[in-house]
Amino acid sequence: MSRLVMKFGGTSVANIERIRNVARHVKREVDAGHDVAVVVSAMSGKTDELVAWASQAAPLYDASEYDAIAASGELVTAGLLAIVLKDMGLRARSWQGWQIPLLTDDAHGAARIASVDGSKIVARFADNEIAVVAGFQGLHAASGRVTTLGRGGSDTSAVALAAAIGADRCDIYTDVDGVYTTDPRVVPRARRLERVAFEEMLEMASLGAKVLQVRSVEVAMVHKVKLTVRSSFDDPADPKLGTLICDEEDIVESQIVTGIAFSKDEAQITLRRVADKPGVAAAIFMPLADANINVDMIIQVISDDTTTTDITFTVPAAEYSRAKAILEERCGQINYALLQGAQDVVKVSAIGIGMRSHSGVAAKAFKALAEKGVNIRAITTSEIKFSVLIDAAYTELAVRTLHSLYGLDAAA
Amino acid sequence: MSRLVMKFGGTSVANIERIRNVARHVKREVDAGHDVAVVVSAMSGKTDELVAWASQAAPLYDASEYDAIAASGELVTAGLLAIVLKDMGLRARSWQGWQIPLLTDDAHGAARIASVDGSKIVARFADNEIAVVAGFQGLHAASGRVTTLGRGGSDTSAVALAAAIGADRCDIYTDVDGVYTTDPRVVPRARRLERVAFEEMLEMASLGAKVLQVRSVEVAMVHKVKLTVRSSFDDPADPKLGTLICDEEDIVESQIVTGIAFSKDEAQITLRRVADKPGVAAAIFMPLADANINVDMIIQVISDDTTTTDITFTVPAAEYSRAKAILEERCGQINYALLQGAQDVVKVSAIGIGMRSHSGVAAKAFKALAEKGVNIRAITTSEIKFSVLIDAAYTELAVRTLHSLYGLDAAA
Repeated sequence: MSRLVMKFGGTSVANIERIRNVARHVKREVDAGHDVAVVVSAMSGKTDELVAWASQAAPLYDASEYDAIAASGELVTAGLLAIVLKDMGLRARSWQGWQIPLLTDDAHGAARIASVDGSKIVARFADNEIAVVAGFQGLHAASGRVTTLGRGGSDTSAVALAAAIGADRCDIYTDVDGVYTTDPRVVPRARRLERVAFEEMLEMASLGAKVLQVRSVEVAMVHKVKLTVRSSFDDPADPKLGTLICDEEDIVESQIVTGIAFSKDEAQITLRRVADKPGVAAAIFMPLADANINVDMIIQVISDDTTTTDITFTVPAAEYSRAKAILEERCGQINYALLQGAQDVVKVSAIGIGMRSHSGVAAKAFKALAEKGVNIRAITTSEIKFSVLIDAAYTELAVRTLHSLYGLDAAA
Repeated sequence: MSRLVMKFGGTSVANIERIRNVARHVKREVDAGHDVAVVVSAMSGKTDELVAWASQAAPLYDASEYDAIAASGELVTAGLLAIVLKDMGLRARSWQGWQIPLLTDDAHGAARIASVDGSKIVARFADNEIAVVAGFQGLHAASGRVTTLGRGGSDTSAVALAAAIGADRCDIYTDVDGVYTTDPRVVPRARRLERVAFEEMLEMASLGAKVLQVRSVEVAMVHKVKLTVRSSFDDPADPKLGTLICDEEDIVESQIVTGIAFSKDEAQITLRRVADKPGVAAAIFMPLADANINVDMIIQVISDDTTTTDITFTVPAAEYSRAKAILEERCGQINYALLQGAQDVVKVSAIGIGMRSHSGVAAKAFKALAEKGVNIRAITTSEIKFSVLIDAAYTELAVRTLHSLYGLDAAA
């Protein structure tokens, strides 16, 4: 007997028939003797509908009211699943964020979880009652208002709840059957991974793999919550195990590179012939930081004339126009000759904890990409990953090249 | 300067454009210097959608989960209206039932309000903040669960809130411009009433007029909340006053009959040749009461043979089959010869506080209906109304006849 958190995303609860299917998955675990808490997202499309209404109401809508609206979708799914479970003869009740309570800070629209009180839910396990929890939402205690955790936030609700009730495992059921070496739509020979280390999953999620919300992996890593990613479309009577996300030491044979991720959500800005003197980096990056624009890759190249330098960096695609305007406004202070931008770029990354103990992993990639004629605009590396910024047109070529290079292709 | 509660129903908030129109009505009152609390229903059709999902999930769905689901529609409207009001430069925030809190008993699906804490809302009037309250819902304190007040419950939310904050008036904005002498679709010469007494409105709502939830009128009467019924489709800059529902003494010239109501939600059951002995009424009506079936009109006629009696009564149309089955099961105990039923019946009622001081009001009606060939199946009377049960086919004829008889027709 153990405790389980099962989380089902929007496509898994898109209509009553699918909710019934989810209930069968839940019943399987209950019949196996587990205490179960289920976390659900809104029916697919519902959150988009609510957000569209908020945008129609006012383009710059109030974030606290947005949260009150957006959190309602999950209430519906939680209630419906509880009804179906009870109709199957199980005990169940739905929980809204404020009822648990799952407390957050007051960063409406992207709140961070402060604490989760699992005591009421655990107390009801004694009565064999299944907790059906509305994901994505919490309560800011001081104001008494509803908050939301950002898109994909139900993953984080599930992991935080798993930590709070001391669950043995947190199963994230989704529309794919696990974490892949890369996106199978781009590389048909991508393989499902049996196990991925938390650190790797964190990098993959941050670098473009959309299977889990980044924050949920952080919380799982900190609280050592064993996570799986698996498919809700499997036969409820005989599901596959999916991918286990776990501690590094639980991975027996680790690859040098575990996966290739890519993100199209990037834009590049290059400032040409910036005066090469102390304080110039601050002059460029402080105003961007003040405007809450995240700068990611930065490279600096001495220009031909040796008294100036070229500085290239990336920002999120959505912030490109704003970043450009801020820098153009400060052209005189920063003292650069030319601002060049590119939005048609993509960041391709290779991730693997094996990189820690192997040198030359990235160099091998640069060579392979050069041989295929892929021009690298920028590079960043860290202990367990490296990323290259390239022209978007070369995305598939680059991803496939790296996927083969590191031996990730499935047997043909 | 005064306090106002304004309530807007589902058709008044059916889309963002209509919500913007509602905001203009609110702004007019705020600009006039009033402190305003707004109560909103779900967008029209949304509650039906939610109820349909619950029914699909399980035909006999759990009432507490139904409430958790059904109450979500109002959260969306409240948030959207708050966004629009803020976008217009006003201060506003949405309130969910549990945030106020509006406390109820635990009769899920048709809960009764226990108390409304108006203090937080009133405190914010000092900052000129408009309260936008999700109607229809409350909180059962002991269980911590969301409850709903039954269909039309937002009217009751509004009146109870008006009582709690000591509002000078509660304006119910709807898709008609007031309370009419009868349904204008049946009688084109129906007139809008300037004023209606609480007692009359209570009878009208109970007897089939759908403009207000019965419970809301009860609460208004007990707490002396001045109510108006008016149209949200009027020009927000120049609205009409609609109908004022007020104390009897505030009505200067009262008619004998104020309005004609009718209800098709009736079914008739007649038991023929019931042994005429003590205890027979209890034998018939106790089992129905035990099954929560409301019996309304009852008439008893001695049969030809003088040792038996015929008993006729009405039950809600929705309970007809259940009532019939209960009585058929007890045929031997009750000892009747024949059970006859009729579902194609309608109850037509005339209401007016003037009946208290005038005799022969009903008799005049019986004569007029007989002259038109309308057969009366049953009659009930009370201090300020009488009702007749007739064949449904005669509904329009009977309503028009009574409407003319009591001088309610508008000038041609």
